[in-house]
Amino acid sequence: MKLYAYFRSSASYRVRIALNLKGLDYEVVPVHLLKNGGQQFSQEYLQLNPDGLVPVLVDESTGGEALTQSLSIIEYLEETHPEPRLLPESPLDRAWVRSLALTIACEIHPLNNLRVLRYLMRELKVSEESKDTWYRHWCEHGLASVEKMLSRDSRTGTFCYGETPGLADCLLVPQIANAQRLQCDLSAMPTIMRINAACQELEAFAKAAPAVQPDAE
Amino acid sequence: MKLYAYFRSSASYRVRIALNLKGLDYEVVPVHLLKNGGQQFSQEYLQLNPDGLVPVLVDESTGGEALTQSLSIIEYLEETHPEPRLLPESPLDRAWVRSLALTIACEIHPLNNLRVLRYLMRELKVSEESKDTWYRHWCEHGLASVEKMLSRDSRTGTFCYGETPGLADCLLVPQIANAQRLQCDLSAMPTIMRINAACQELEAFAKAAPAVQPDAE
Repeated sequence: MKLYAYFRSSASYRVRIALNLKGLDYEVVPVHLLKNGGQQFSQEYLQLNPDGLVPVLVDESTGGEALTQSLSIIEYLEETHPEPRLLPESPLDRAWVRSLALTIACEIHPLNNLRVLRYLMRELKVSEESKDTWYRHWCEHGLASVEKMLSRDSRTGTFCYGETPGLADCLLVPQIANAQRLQCDLSAMPTIMRINAACQELEAFAKAAPAVQPDAE
Repeated sequence: MKLYAYFRSSASYRVRIALNLKGLDYEVVPVHLLKNGGQQFSQEYLQLNPDGLVPVLVDESTGGEALTQSLSIIEYLEETHPEPRLLPESPLDRAWVRSLALTIACEIHPLNNLRVLRYLMRELKVSEESKDTWYRHWCEHGLASVEKMLSRDSRTGTFCYGETPGLADCLLVPQIANAQRLQCDLSAMPTIMRINAACQELEAFAKAAPAVQPDAE
């Protein structure tokens, strides 16, 4: 499999973790989001993904279609390589884990995307400081929701759901990395920080970290 | 089942369509997002969903747990009531349909949420006009991506995927309703407009429309 990714993109990071947890081989094809006006806007890349976003997964074993959207890619990996599983078995528990993942994927990350931050600065003439405040606001607000969800639920274990890492952890760890990079205040979020630390000890997460990617700067 | 929803919330609208397509009975419990500072922030509602967002689905037949995040709720409905199916059978096609849905759920809707628009106006002191420009920008940009994806793919039929309505249509129709309400320019998007028109002819979509909800204004 080929994963078109940018080392610092948290959506790419999610998919790397999922691939590693499932023990799948893949080659990273770096797509630099900043150099030369952004390689994601090249004609070649737009053929793969007209939305100009990373990551894209190409699975040659099933025909080489370019798959987009990190959550959709992870669900695809779950369906084609069911073990080890990233989602629980019961529909209620699956809904729970997906709702944790979607809280990060829909309520935090889209607001802090590169193109959104650019719009704030270029179109709305927002200062660097206000942009960073915006970033921290949505990150802290969303992670506080995840903290509340996890801290009151009996299914929370060493990881977001029980004792094995899964879909929600694939989203949580990259989001915390972003939060720390922008100096968000995570002091009131002991549950997610404890889970993040447990994940960091696993090779699947360590190997997926931005700093150890081939295109890391 | 009980669906806590606001008539104009497009995330609620998505779930109403899915419930109707599956022919499931449900009672709508209106949650007014604007009245009295927002009923979604009442202690009672925050017990259901600490994130203070609609919709929430409560399925008494499986224990009455409060399910959040519209896409997670629809996947739950798909798993517990498989027929008629909203997702195709093959993993590749499922990934395709989910990527269409997630393009709307992650790249458009989060940017145009009530709380984001409020932040723009209250914290960033953005004018009403710039706020509307922001809304239209993300809506037009995201729908243009969906148009490109659908117009070049052979799986596109009367609906987003083939000849029966499914998950992607559940997300597309509410997003187009929002786009039209804010006078977005959809003139260069014939595929999505054709699909939207086909959906509108179905009772499942008509019954889910904001204007016919019990709390419609």
